Amino acid sequence: MTDVVRFGLIGAGTIGRVHADNLARRVDGARLVAVADIDRKAAEACAASCGAEAFTSDAELVARPDVDAVAVCTPPETHAGIIEAAAAAGKHIFCEKPLERTLEAADQAIAAAGKAKVKLFVAFNRRFDPHFLHLRDAIQAGRIGRPLLLHFVARDPVASLGNLPRPAGDLFLSTTIHELDFAGYLVGEPVESVYATGGVMKEGATIDDPDTAVTALRFPSGVSATLDNSRLSAHGYDQRIEAYGTAGMITAGNLRGDDTRTIDATGDHRAGAMDFFADRYRESYIAEMAAFARCVLEDTPPPVTPAEARTAQVLAHAAHRSYVEGRVVAVSEFR
Amino acid sequence: MTDVVRFGLIGAGTIGRVHADNLARRVDGARLVAVADIDRKAAEACAASCGAEAFTSDAELVARPDVDAVAVCTPPETHAGIIEAAAAAGKHIFCEKPLERTLEAADQAIAAAGKAKVKLFVAFNRRFDPHFLHLRDAIQAGRIGRPLLLHFVARDPVASLGNLPRPAGDLFLSTTIHELDFAGYLVGEPVESVYATGGVMKEGATIDDPDTAVTALRFPSGVSATLDNSRLSAHGYDQRIEAYGTAGMITAGNLRGDDTRTIDATGDHRAGAMDFFADRYRESYIAEMAAFARCVLEDTPPPVTPAEARTAQVLAHAAHRSYVEGRVVAVSEFR
Amino acid sequence: MTDVVRFGLIGAGTIGRVHADNLARRVDGARLVAVADIDRKAAEACAASCGAEAFTSDAELVARPDVDAVAVCTPPETHAGIIEAAAAAGKHIFCEKPLERTLEAADQAIAAAGKAKVKLFVAFNRRFDPHFLHLRDAIQAGRIGRPLLLHFVARDPVASLGNLPRPAGDLFLSTTIHELDFAGYLVGEPVESVYATGGVMKEGATIDDPDTAVTALRFPSGVSATLDNSRLSAHGYDQRIEAYGTAGMITAGNLRGDDTRTIDATGDHRAGAMDFFADRYRESYIAEMAAFARCVLEDTPPPVTPAEARTAQVLAHAAHRSYVEGRVVAVSEFR
Amino acid sequence: MTDVVRFGLIGAGTIGRVHADNLARRVDGARLVAVADIDRKAAEACAASCGAEAFTSDAELVARPDVDAVAVCTPPETHAGIIEAAAAAGKHIFCEKPLERTLEAADQAIAAAGKAKVKLFVAFNRRFDPHFLHLRDAIQAGRIGRPLLLHFVARDPVASLGNLPRPAGDLFLSTTIHELDFAGYLVGEPVESVYATGGVMKEGATIDDPDTAVTALRFPSGVSATLDNSRLSAHGYDQRIEAYGTAGMITAGNLRGDDTRTIDATGDHRAGAMDFFADRYRESYIAEMAAFARCVLEDTPPPVTPAEARTAQVLAHAAHRSYVEGRVVAVSEFR
Repeated sequence: MTDVVRFGLIGAGTIGRVHADNLARRVDGARLVAVADIDRKAAEACAASCGAEAFTSDAELVARPDVDAVAVCTPPETHAGIIEAAAAAGKHIFCEKPLERTLEAADQAIAAAGKAKVKLFVAFNRRFDPHFLHLRDAIQAGRIGRPLLLHFVARDPVASLGNLPRPAGDLFLSTTIHELDFAGYLVGEPVESVYATGGVMKEGATIDDPDTAVTALRFPSGVSATLDNSRLSAHGYDQRIEAYGTAGMITAGNLRGDDTRTIDATGDHRAGAMDFFADRYRESYIAEMAAFARCVLEDTPPPVTPAEARTAQVLAHAAHRSYVEGRVVAVSEFR
Repeated sequence: MTDVVRFGLIGAGTIGRVHADNLARRVDGARLVAVADIDRKAAEACAASCGAEAFTSDAELVARPDVDAVAVCTPPETHAGIIEAAAAAGKHIFCEKPLERTLEAADQAIAAAGKAKVKLFVAFNRRFDPHFLHLRDAIQAGRIGRPLLLHFVARDPVASLGNLPRPAGDLFLSTTIHELDFAGYLVGEPVESVYATGGVMKEGATIDDPDTAVTALRFPSGVSATLDNSRLSAHGYDQRIEAYGTAGMITAGNLRGDDTRTIDATGDHRAGAMDFFADRYRESYIAEMAAFARCVLEDTPPPVTPAEARTAQVLAHAAHRSYVEGRVVAVSEFR
Repeated sequence: MTDVVRFGLIGAGTIGRVHADNLARRVDGARLVAVADIDRKAAEACAASCGAEAFTSDAELVARPDVDAVAVCTPPETHAGIIEAAAAAGKHIFCEKPLERTLEAADQAIAAAGKAKVKLFVAFNRRFDPHFLHLRDAIQAGRIGRPLLLHFVARDPVASLGNLPRPAGDLFLSTTIHELDFAGYLVGEPVESVYATGGVMKEGATIDDPDTAVTALRFPSGVSATLDNSRLSAHGYDQRIEAYGTAGMITAGNLRGDDTRTIDATGDHRAGAMDFFADRYRESYIAEMAAFARCVLEDTPPPVTPAEARTAQVLAHAAHRSYVEGRVVAVSEFR
Repeated sequence: MTDVVRFGLIGAGTIGRVHADNLARRVDGARLVAVADIDRKAAEACAASCGAEAFTSDAELVARPDVDAVAVCTPPETHAGIIEAAAAAGKHIFCEKPLERTLEAADQAIAAAGKAKVKLFVAFNRRFDPHFLHLRDAIQAGRIGRPLLLHFVARDPVASLGNLPRPAGDLFLSTTIHELDFAGYLVGEPVESVYATGGVMKEGATIDDPDTAVTALRFPSGVSATLDNSRLSAHGYDQRIEAYGTAGMITAGNLRGDDTRTIDATGDHRAGAMDFFADRYRESYIAEMAAFARCVLEDTPPPVTPAEARTAQVLAHAAHRSYVEGRVVAVSEFR
């Protein structure tokens, strides 16, 4: 292998194009050589803008000898299949969260990567956001003493909510999963039980999956965390953490695009939130890809392990079960 | 009756002295004429500083013909007895929260006041705080659309936490009860179910009641609320509300004593929180007493009704049951 | 003399009523016994609301044996006459700023008080504002090292600006004088020279005195201060200080009436400034009066000396001369 | 000419390396082909990191046929000579501010560029900062009505202050010149007069040029601006603007590196300022270079004209004269 990881990217949708653009221009130790999408136009447009070759077949891309690693940016239910094919071809795997739609499929993917001895990294980008990292470092340095309570806010702009059918549990599996991962990452204990409530709150929604929910986590030591998630945010992309401990509290506030402030007869006004997740988390997407490239080049464990990715997925399933059944769900219910 | 309500105050502890001081100096339509405490020194000191007469017997105070209304500032488990005596004597009643320690006693108190046709007002002072009121008015005016999620923070300074025995459920009944009341006040629906978790988090604590807990409320419409309570705050008295709705969000932030800001080589520093609840809520204590005096003078229903006070107490009992049994508790379990 | 200072207040206009209300209800060590105003209705209304006796003649009020001290709240050009009469009658004097309209009259007033050995206190209330005091204490404690630059903002709501004729130099003498006093108070050196510029910026103004100006002060050590004053503020009453020194900076920010914050699709909104100076500076008016009462009762020098009041007035005259002549004015030009 | 501007950069010091790095990687429409510095090692290190050729002779670089434009990043007193040589060779010129050390030299440079019909752009990067631009756009859109008063803060970290000799007036010519330019850019009128005061405030400084100063500008309409500059900032790089107008005010606040906030028993703490100008203004350096490249490619006037650059320099000389002579200096004193 050279001193750079050559990537083939599968799935040229919104997040796929973010990663492709970064791989082509901003990630140390990475190069983008191929892009695949079943939609030929999408594949070609993305590949062209990134100086890469376009494919419509995953299999063809995976088979390329000049591809060292695959970036999986397709819908969750396709992940295991692609991961197994990539692993069989000896390619390392960068995979968008969640690992898979079902736990069974996730376990197959993990087993395949393990057997092939390739890296499997699931992209929990919050772990690479400089603001959240600063918060985590401060907690680990003891700035707030022992953590007691955490509160997460993660709200998506309502504009991003279509009326396309979504699989049951999608809110938890696609959105909450970030906070489910990060909460454990901050507390350093496995979650004991999960409670989730909320609803389909959008006027006239025809989709059954909740668009707004609160999830409460209990850790064995008595620490708890609440996760506030919604896909109906009128005020943009709202992403915050508050951690409260025996010596004080720390927050990572929401980011805004510009720092001016206007005061007039109607009040004191500042810009609100950003609108687009890829702007808010721009640095984290570059950093996570660089971290993955580094773990491939240096042959070290990925900075998010398959076991951690599975744990977050279990919590998402537990949250959904709690939401559906209206009861507290012990994590031990999931193997 | 004159154009002023003449008060006898029972219980000259911390909160009793706050109310006595306000009654003596700051509440329009009120006058303090008598103070009772089983501790003669406490009664006399308080009475002297307020130009009132001191008693050691509640009964004697309640019997005074120059007392129009009684302010009950004793421990919760004594409330029903005092309320029944006061009602029997035809006195109106201002009562510190919670209404009582048990629901049975609360119901006896409500019945006694109802039978005697005297006002019974339970002092949920958050409803009279100008900042929280402004938030509520804005919500009612539609500023955030339909509310979807609420988050409350209410943390007491660790310095206020002694190691005296506290009855089981005290955190919920004495502290959380404020947010339990206010959440319903904001949402305008009865709570459907309650989930609480947390723990005795203080190092070396010898008391069984939790000092830190999260309570999640589910409302029938799918709205939810999370309440973050703790008695271990190292950074002072922390009291906040965030309400998120279909059109945006509104927050009432924590207050600090002074508004200067210092920036030096170590960062950007401001004063933290206030230390004492009576400073933070100074205006609310005056306003709630004035509102009570007004309802007596104008013979209108009290601004917090006995039924509302009972509802908050039910929720506190439900939260405690949930905490103890580790399950979601339907409010319908309580009659 | 008793243990309380009995006040006669002269001038029942806006600021006079603020002081009367405080003297009647909120100032330890003070009592209001008499109110005089040439407008009988004004005198009677103010006196009635404060439980004091009404007069239309200053002389009559000053002659009262039950008056220990006089509070002078009339227009500046009447101050010297009243002070001389009060001093002759052996009354202590609390006088609104500025001391007088001209330096000659100010000197006569100072001389009269000195000869009669009565206290003469000019009410620079910023020195008693808790936020500004906290800033000053922090500076004196070395929090920012040696001060290098100061910046003051003091803007009055445009609503307070009438089109009544104002004497030349009124902006500097009535408004800027607060910052001229406070700047010297913070730096601890006499000002060396003054430069002021600005203009009559109000559209269609028929008054010659500037409504908006910047004043720059030079201190002998090289420290400088800029004062930003305006009577055209559309956003309310805006009062701030920034002090920058060798070890950092400190600011006292503007105050707002309520602490809620709304975030919606149009941005992040908070309440702007307060509208009324007597709300913004409520505590300072009580504190300065209490400090004056204390200096009378304890026979100590007033917390603002006549010499300090004269210095601030000299600076206001220097600023006006600089504004008119378009040049830097040395303070030494004024005796 | 191709569709990209090929740059030769002269002067591989701090700011030169910032521009070289941007030209090599981040500026659309630009390519870096050559770097010259009289220090061979500096030239080679910079050129190597940017994939460009290294020179020790300006003349040689200027003579290169594959260089379309020259970026002048050498000390001010060398600018005119390089500009004249570049113009003679038909190269377009990007020049760091100030245009030159003396007005005579600046005029020669302008004349040379004019005669050769090459673009001459002086790099006032504040005009390309997104935060300051947002403020300017809001003002131009009428958000604050007519501007009345402006206040600028521009303080450099004390760490950046060496004890090397600096030419007289360097503070104004190297630092204040940014605000002198931007103030006029915001107000849209030529400055009428300038007053500056301040001092050599650093303990034990052996350099005569002031390290801290306030400059007050008067515009013909009565608008004024104050500029607060210092090279002694203990709290980092502090860059702010406040504009106050008839309808309100707008500020561009200082930026901080991270957005977390810690609250503990000692207060409420956030990160202070950034430390390095190239971090604070990262985006502006890229944007100004891209704007220059565009004006070359599209043959349009540079976004900062030579006349504007000269005006800012005149104001810097006027400020210095005012500082030295202790008087208000009319801009008309300079031709």
